[in-house]
Amino acid sequence: MKAVRLHRYGVPPQLDDIDKPTVSSPLDVVVQIGAAGLCRTDLHVIEGQWKTIQNPALPYTLGHENAGWIADVGSAVTGLMPGDPVIVHPLVTCGLCAACRAGDDSHCANATFPGLNTDGGMADYLLTNARAVVKLDPNLRPADVAALADAGLTAYHAVRKAVPLLPPGSHAVVIGAGGLGHIGIQVLAALTAATITVVDRSADALELARTIGAHHTINAAEDAAVVVDRLRDITGGGAHVVFDYVGEHGTPGQGLAALRNRGSYFTIGYGGNVDLPTIELISREINVVGNLVGSYNDLAELMTLTAQGKVTLHTNAYPLDAVNDAIHDLESGKLVGRAILIPAAG
Amino acid sequence: MKAVRLHRYGVPPQLDDIDKPTVSSPLDVVVQIGAAGLCRTDLHVIEGQWKTIQNPALPYTLGHENAGWIADVGSAVTGLMPGDPVIVHPLVTCGLCAACRAGDDSHCANATFPGLNTDGGMADYLLTNARAVVKLDPNLRPADVAALADAGLTAYHAVRKAVPLLPPGSHAVVIGAGGLGHIGIQVLAALTAATITVVDRSADALELARTIGAHHTINAAEDAAVVVDRLRDITGGGAHVVFDYVGEHGTPGQGLAALRNRGSYFTIGYGGNVDLPTIELISREINVVGNLVGSYNDLAELMTLTAQGKVTLHTNAYPLDAVNDAIHDLESGKLVGRAILIPAAG
Amino acid sequence: MKAVRLHRYGVPPQLDDIDKPTVSSPLDVVVQIGAAGLCRTDLHVIEGQWKTIQNPALPYTLGHENAGWIADVGSAVTGLMPGDPVIVHPLVTCGLCAACRAGDDSHCANATFPGLNTDGGMADYLLTNARAVVKLDPNLRPADVAALADAGLTAYHAVRKAVPLLPPGSHAVVIGAGGLGHIGIQVLAALTAATITVVDRSADALELARTIGAHHTINAAEDAAVVVDRLRDITGGGAHVVFDYVGEHGTPGQGLAALRNRGSYFTIGYGGNVDLPTIELISREINVVGNLVGSYNDLAELMTLTAQGKVTLHTNAYPLDAVNDAIHDLESGKLVGRAILIPAAG
Amino acid sequence: MKAVRLHRYGVPPQLDDIDKPTVSSPLDVVVQIGAAGLCRTDLHVIEGQWKTIQNPALPYTLGHENAGWIADVGSAVTGLMPGDPVIVHPLVTCGLCAACRAGDDSHCANATFPGLNTDGGMADYLLTNARAVVKLDPNLRPADVAALADAGLTAYHAVRKAVPLLPPGSHAVVIGAGGLGHIGIQVLAALTAATITVVDRSADALELARTIGAHHTINAAEDAAVVVDRLRDITGGGAHVVFDYVGEHGTPGQGLAALRNRGSYFTIGYGGNVDLPTIELISREINVVGNLVGSYNDLAELMTLTAQGKVTLHTNAYPLDAVNDAIHDLESGKLVGRAILIPAAG
Repeated sequence: MKAVRLHRYGVPPQLDDIDKPTVSSPLDVVVQIGAAGLCRTDLHVIEGQWKTIQNPALPYTLGHENAGWIADVGSAVTGLMPGDPVIVHPLVTCGLCAACRAGDDSHCANATFPGLNTDGGMADYLLTNARAVVKLDPNLRPADVAALADAGLTAYHAVRKAVPLLPPGSHAVVIGAGGLGHIGIQVLAALTAATITVVDRSADALELARTIGAHHTINAAEDAAVVVDRLRDITGGGAHVVFDYVGEHGTPGQGLAALRNRGSYFTIGYGGNVDLPTIELISREINVVGNLVGSYNDLAELMTLTAQGKVTLHTNAYPLDAVNDAIHDLESGKLVGRAILIPAAG
Repeated sequence: MKAVRLHRYGVPPQLDDIDKPTVSSPLDVVVQIGAAGLCRTDLHVIEGQWKTIQNPALPYTLGHENAGWIADVGSAVTGLMPGDPVIVHPLVTCGLCAACRAGDDSHCANATFPGLNTDGGMADYLLTNARAVVKLDPNLRPADVAALADAGLTAYHAVRKAVPLLPPGSHAVVIGAGGLGHIGIQVLAALTAATITVVDRSADALELARTIGAHHTINAAEDAAVVVDRLRDITGGGAHVVFDYVGEHGTPGQGLAALRNRGSYFTIGYGGNVDLPTIELISREINVVGNLVGSYNDLAELMTLTAQGKVTLHTNAYPLDAVNDAIHDLESGKLVGRAILIPAAG
Repeated sequence: MKAVRLHRYGVPPQLDDIDKPTVSSPLDVVVQIGAAGLCRTDLHVIEGQWKTIQNPALPYTLGHENAGWIADVGSAVTGLMPGDPVIVHPLVTCGLCAACRAGDDSHCANATFPGLNTDGGMADYLLTNARAVVKLDPNLRPADVAALADAGLTAYHAVRKAVPLLPPGSHAVVIGAGGLGHIGIQVLAALTAATITVVDRSADALELARTIGAHHTINAAEDAAVVVDRLRDITGGGAHVVFDYVGEHGTPGQGLAALRNRGSYFTIGYGGNVDLPTIELISREINVVGNLVGSYNDLAELMTLTAQGKVTLHTNAYPLDAVNDAIHDLESGKLVGRAILIPAAG
Repeated sequence: MKAVRLHRYGVPPQLDDIDKPTVSSPLDVVVQIGAAGLCRTDLHVIEGQWKTIQNPALPYTLGHENAGWIADVGSAVTGLMPGDPVIVHPLVTCGLCAACRAGDDSHCANATFPGLNTDGGMADYLLTNARAVVKLDPNLRPADVAALADAGLTAYHAVRKAVPLLPPGSHAVVIGAGGLGHIGIQVLAALTAATITVVDRSADALELARTIGAHHTINAAEDAAVVVDRLRDITGGGAHVVFDYVGEHGTPGQGLAALRNRGSYFTIGYGGNVDLPTIELISREINVVGNLVGSYNDLAELMTLTAQGKVTLHTNAYPLDAVNDAIHDLESGKLVGRAILIPAAG
């Protein structure tokens, strides 16, 4: 089969012919790929930034946002039939560790991460296991949802955790209305009645935000000096929850300053620092909440919202063998929406 | 009546003769003071550190940790009779703002703070209101509990919030086994089955900690370089919750490093900084939780634990007119346990 | 002023001229009535069914669903000015008992209930207190919301409690799409992404239900024998939550049978019985949840949803002096929507 | 190996020589039995009461409360070594269904139940899977804990769910201080500071209750007519939570009557009925909560409490081949504590 393989860090991946993966363990599942998302993490992988963390044996196949159809299943797999459309949770988890047993499978002690430390889904077929596979509603096509498998899941997970903090009358602030943020806004609108205020540096992103649920928007490029003042004003004294999908270039400081007493700053984007005197944390009794990917159940719920039409994703499709065009467009900022790669039979 | 009044910042308070407060509003309550706690905050008040925050008109009466007996009540107060023993919540709250209505009265939008911005309880009598008064179990004496009104309440509030995170098999770490920390340890032992590990620089404090619930102790003075290593070892890979009752001199960094994935760092002490890359927050999905005083219901629950003998406090009593001796002993480090001031009729 | 007063049980109330209520306590509030809802409870009150429970001194003024404008406030009331539009929580609560302090003010140990045990709001003016008054958004008129003060609040409270049980992909069943039920459906649609199935005996009610959020409807008159079968089919094996706004004529049995394992039956309507073998409760691990009115914060949240246009109520206005026409129309089933009474100056 | 096999309903089981089970699937685990609990459910199984529910092919091996040592593991099992002491969760679960993924594995859609619908643990060896095995603390012996695997787990699960309802100052009532109830009392004392009141018909059971955490006891045989009055008196107006470990002979009615407003009746025992007017549920806003077995994590937590010495169980050991003596003693009421069967090598 065809597969986008990384042979050397710093060198563009190439399309190889390799053997199709096969089922060897009772819970194994082989998925025929309908689409694989391409995201900035892939660029970082190619550059070698993840080498020390994940350290895969090269060459290996990229692709950690995958959807397609069941091709083959192991002997212990029930409820999945060849041809079933599925989206694939980014982690292959054990189901035996304490985290898995508590429903926190994104913290599985024994997980592998296809596309990061083992063969991923930029290929005709992907090997994963039954614990990773979410069956799709018949009206969803793999190509429409693949890019939700990681980015969308992460955006969803953070909002889902915050729902109890956002009753009617509360204020949610979203910093960053890009790939993750615009999913977060849609999930907020679907799961809460909170007033949503979005901060971004792009007028286009804010325009989109208003059409998918934002009640107020602030252009951080134009109003840099007064972002916090405007947020405190709009939110009547501070937000109940700030979702920071940027996490750098000063957004942590802004997000924390925009909280009301007992408010919570949810950090999803990264790169910068949270630097806060303990007296601030205490006198305002505020919280800082980290967020990482999401659980299998989070992904299943996100697919439900997508099937209901409450979450949609803008994508640009490339044939699998045009992977380096897609990478080039992503790197050069030409891309609008998320890039997805479609195998010949996808 | 006698009252310990601050006339000028930087000058020791003096014992004045002033009028006894009287009931003027239907929810007013006058408490005859049985004991008033003295704590480091009082030293900071005298030094003028709270001037810009609370800005009381001088002279005024110190004392924000108060207990005694009901002396007089307003026309709308029910369920309280002269002579009833009570402890006094540090805030006088409104019962009308959103925070009060949600049970978060420590964030009352209209609160006053006797001893900080209006006359406090280092006196024969204190004026407060019915929303601040917790009736004591008959077997508790005001002098035994006064110093729990603020310090103990703060320690309790933090542990109480963390209880859902501490099921059997979990690990709690307590940094600082002093005035607040040793209450926190007792509350942990009363409300959870978590394994408790205590870090302090004082061998005496650790000795006490072991008698009131600590399963493991680490002397941070002796083992400074390996505190985090030892914590990660004892907790089997990291704590579920760290309670930092110090909040400075490097403890925030230690506390955060000692968390396991999805763990929570509760900051109660203050003075230092939390400085953390967002990538750390995200990749470990950890939380930073601020904590401030506690609600009326928290104080009522703490009094229940105290009446049950599950929380006890070591105190040193001084007559009210010896307030400057008590201040001197506190400043010079001579004091073991909490200082309380006893009026002549207390 | 004019007031609709009950002089004798079993005899229609009459319009009397009585003194306007005045402020006597610092937290008192006098509201000029804009509209007072009329509901079946009022009919039961007139019949004498509530006599033994509430036992008001006769004559007294009816009306427990009230909205209007602030007319006068006591000396301790802040944040409310004459002319402010308000809705009135049905209970006058103390703010001092354990329930009030925990935010459960609908279980206040010292509450009065205007319209049931003291003078209510079918009059030009109503006496209540500051703890009962929710300020309205400027775009809401008292006449539009009065009937939400009790019926709407009750419907809201039940759904609000159930939100954590209703993630995307879950199934909510609503039995009864009448006065309370049709508010419940709107709240479900506003606060959850659950699939909503509505059961009623009226084709008109089901028609309305479909326009306000119901995904599936079942006509219980036509399909009486198969309601449970159809519910189990639509919900894929049983509902996560059933809201029973009827509570009699066999609906408790249907609602319980329609639950999936670990599901919850929320009872709001009443009249019938829950009769269930303990083996059923245990083997399916199901829950039965009672629901009563709602808290002040519930009412404030409901007003937010109403101001956002997410909840609307159909009403029929009558002049206050036509109260007995309204009663007649309600009794004879002529009324579509909720009846409200409008004072001359309302 | 030796195994206690049921050949015909209504006829005592017999000790057969059968083949030792072997590992055939990657997650299979074979446990050498150290002890197997005998409980009333086994008597009901023998009588045929479970035939229509579980319908095992006869003959099969009894025993659903099992502990021992790992004998052999499948190829995918990690973290378990031959010789490791373990307790066995009563269900063999899939880890793939929605319930398993959410941590509710006791509601697994694909579970088997050794001892009820497939070969159980009254034998030298038991076949289960890795999802069912909890490793024991080195200081726990299988014979000490086997009888906690089902009965203890059920008692624990109910209390664990109720912990958030039982802050300091709250009241828990335990009806029935027998096999399950006396575990429930110990767990309540370990996990809450609630005041515990125990109701039983046996003076001996109440005597034991007082030594393991009960603050008040009521002899339901002596004080039958006033049980509810005494409960309402002791609890200051009603319990926050009632745990009914009996569930028949009138206890549901007593338990429900003993609740305060917003209280919860947890039913664990069964046999009787909950029969309650909906007006009662609503006017008091009370809850009825079913409870079934417990999750894997519940069992792991219970083992932690047991290792900490906070839960202990009285047992009477019989050799495996004396199973019918044990049955006879259990049926005739001669047994004090729980009966456990010990294989020759156990």
